[in-house]
Amino acid sequence: MGNIVTVERQILRKNDDIAAENREIFRRHNLFVFNLLSSPGSGKTSILEKTIEKMVPKYRLAVVEGDVQTDLDAQRISRFDVPVVQIVTKGGCHLEANLIQNALKNLELDQLDLLVIENVGNLVCPSNYDLGEALKVVVVSTTEGDDKPLKYPKMFRVSEVMIVNKIDLLPYVDFSLENVRKNALQINPNLQIFETSCRTGEGIEQWAAWLAEKVETSRSGN
Amino acid sequence: MGNIVTVERQILRKNDDIAAENREIFRRHNLFVFNLLSSPGSGKTSILEKTIEKMVPKYRLAVVEGDVQTDLDAQRISRFDVPVVQIVTKGGCHLEANLIQNALKNLELDQLDLLVIENVGNLVCPSNYDLGEALKVVVVSTTEGDDKPLKYPKMFRVSEVMIVNKIDLLPYVDFSLENVRKNALQINPNLQIFETSCRTGEGIEQWAAWLAEKVETSRSGN
Repeated sequence: MGNIVTVERQILRKNDDIAAENREIFRRHNLFVFNLLSSPGSGKTSILEKTIEKMVPKYRLAVVEGDVQTDLDAQRISRFDVPVVQIVTKGGCHLEANLIQNALKNLELDQLDLLVIENVGNLVCPSNYDLGEALKVVVVSTTEGDDKPLKYPKMFRVSEVMIVNKIDLLPYVDFSLENVRKNALQINPNLQIFETSCRTGEGIEQWAAWLAEKVETSRSGN
Repeated sequence: MGNIVTVERQILRKNDDIAAENREIFRRHNLFVFNLLSSPGSGKTSILEKTIEKMVPKYRLAVVEGDVQTDLDAQRISRFDVPVVQIVTKGGCHLEANLIQNALKNLELDQLDLLVIENVGNLVCPSNYDLGEALKVVVVSTTEGDDKPLKYPKMFRVSEVMIVNKIDLLPYVDFSLENVRKNALQINPNLQIFETSCRTGEGIEQWAAWLAEKVETSRSGN
């Protein structure tokens, strides 16, 4: 298996080079970019919708949608007046930096303050691929069990933010906010944590305020 | 990228060879084997627990647990009096046939009727890896959205069974049993579908009865 590992390393090194180029492009345009990650069905697209509602029109926002097969998520987002680029990986389990670089050709980067990349639903593979984003936001929902940070640690280690979503379902599931916090901070003590419900809107304000501050900083060229 | 695709194909071919060996081993021992698949937090381990409760002691059952990092699931299963072999993939996003073949060395196959493989939580990558199992069972929970079969079609195409889990949460989520059935059958018209709640026990009886029939057939050498 030695050979195979070598090949994987080369792919990752290549990816890191392209990610560095992407990062330089984003910096040049004072564009704040985050990568939204989770397993399928945690509510990435719902959080994206709520984020768009809060950020537009104050900030100029665009979306890159990553999906294995369909453009269902891009269709959901298309009801907003924001540019959306759909990447269909055709079975691929994660986005890579070159896919993002190609997608950027369809966007007017000078006309944007914030770019959100919604990754393929997968709590494992995307954690290995830097896209050039400023930060990774991992979403975990209350229906998935509070042990997820321990079971899929790399994703929580490489993320700067964890959003615990679907807190409206807390009365009906075996899930402890205290435990998920403890488990996540054990993996990554610097995690910024938000608790949200896209159904009730709870917690969205706090997340959006935090994000706005990041966008402001980036827009001012710092 | 031509080279890389070639390498992947070689890995898959090798995997298919080992999977064929596994299948022959299972056949020789009249052992029924299924592979339990889903995204993280859909309730694979809970369904496994309920399945063990129904099948033991009538059938002699063992479990192979696949996890990225921890042995938390194996610990949960260890309260039952069944052999459990834990595979930790150390970041790997799926199980492969050679990992299963190694795990088999820890089991007395002649003393078993049923082997359950709980795969890594991932709705994408494991769909590409035959393990030699008799069938794949994909679990989707009512909190994940009824569009999942369309968005992750390969997993539903290669599975013989879909279990829709957490139906006790239906009153609190935007999920239609009718839609998920329709979407799944559009991808794979032959899917056998069960609807379960591990909290209330609803639907477990039907699933276990269906499974018992499969085990009986396998045990009789057919």
